[in-house]
Amino acid sequence: MSEILAPWRTLLQRALHRNRSQIFSRYFSLATISEDGFPTNRMVVFRGFLDNSNQVKIITDIRSEKFTHLTNNSSSEICWYFAKTREQFRIKGKITLITEICQDKNLLSEREKVWEKLSINAKEQFYWANPRELLTENPAIIINEIEEKKPISNFCLLLLNPQKVDHLELKGNPQNRCIYELMENNQWLKTMVNP
Amino acid sequence: MSEILAPWRTLLQRALHRNRSQIFSRYFSLATISEDGFPTNRMVVFRGFLDNSNQVKIITDIRSEKFTHLTNNSSSEICWYFAKTREQFRIKGKITLITEICQDKNLLSEREKVWEKLSINAKEQFYWANPRELLTENPAIIINEIEEKKPISNFCLLLLNPQKVDHLELKGNPQNRCIYELMENNQWLKTMVNP
Repeated sequence: MSEILAPWRTLLQRALHRNRSQIFSRYFSLATISEDGFPTNRMVVFRGFLDNSNQVKIITDIRSEKFTHLTNNSSSEICWYFAKTREQFRIKGKITLITEICQDKNLLSEREKVWEKLSINAKEQFYWANPRELLTENPAIIINEIEEKKPISNFCLLLLNPQKVDHLELKGNPQNRCIYELMENNQWLKTMVNP
Repeated sequence: MSEILAPWRTLLQRALHRNRSQIFSRYFSLATISEDGFPTNRMVVFRGFLDNSNQVKIITDIRSEKFTHLTNNSSSEICWYFAKTREQFRIKGKITLITEICQDKNLLSEREKVWEKLSINAKEQFYWANPRELLTENPAIIINEIEEKKPISNFCLLLLNPQKVDHLELKGNPQNRCIYELMENNQWLKTMVNP
């Protein structure tokens, strides 16, 4: 079933367009919570939205720390800064992990589609030696048979389901800040606030 | 008392230098945890290191959410991405809040020094209407008497005391990743790991 396109999507699309000359505009930082309750934070790549939804697609390796953190606590917040237009989107939501054991056929097929679209370089990383272990002699031995179509077992699709978006434009004086919250009736409530 | 300059400081200094043409290289995202246990994430500006220490200086308004979060839980993680050299520093540590009621004279004087160095624009923001309240007609009424020397009451200096630094260089194949951890003997343990 298709969701209503959230009102902040237009603004995010505009930011992506205006900042398109800077490739890193498609990177954002993702905060999660570790098993021992510490905030953790790292850059990830934006992989688009799930069709007919506001869910943000991200990918990870099930051997990564963030996979473990999210298995334990699905809460997260994106901080997405656009340097050229000087605006920030904070996107808060819970994350669903789509691995090969997912029971939903549509989501499994989405996982495959995302894998298929990855560059060879991005795919290769899933064949590297175990992350965070002591450096092995050649962590990036390339296996000849990188699966082009079928995702490798450790490939995981993350879907962040936005609940709250905080949009801040630094350019104004004062700055402009607007908060969007998803209501129980599935509508987005927009509130202009002081920066 | 002066601390030992951490081994990752040289690398961070190098990154700041090599990326100096991009002004936003001095911004990083800061993750904290809200009172209700959610990860939160926003951009902040790097204000340098505290003299003779590895503590990272950040500023905030005591009316901001992050002040409340940090009062409740001092844990945090910086994610600092340098776009030009394609490297990431994740800096984990606890944050000390230095407000006007701080008992330590040296830290109080540091708070003053940081205030003094701020641009007028940055100072002005501390005189704006309450953040996150419904947009008031003119949230940025400028009070004539901005204190140039003495910090306004709601000005807060944050000191992040690094415990662990994770440095990732995306340029290599494979990428280079090195983890630095502060040991009980106050020495930094450096470990080269798989990316």
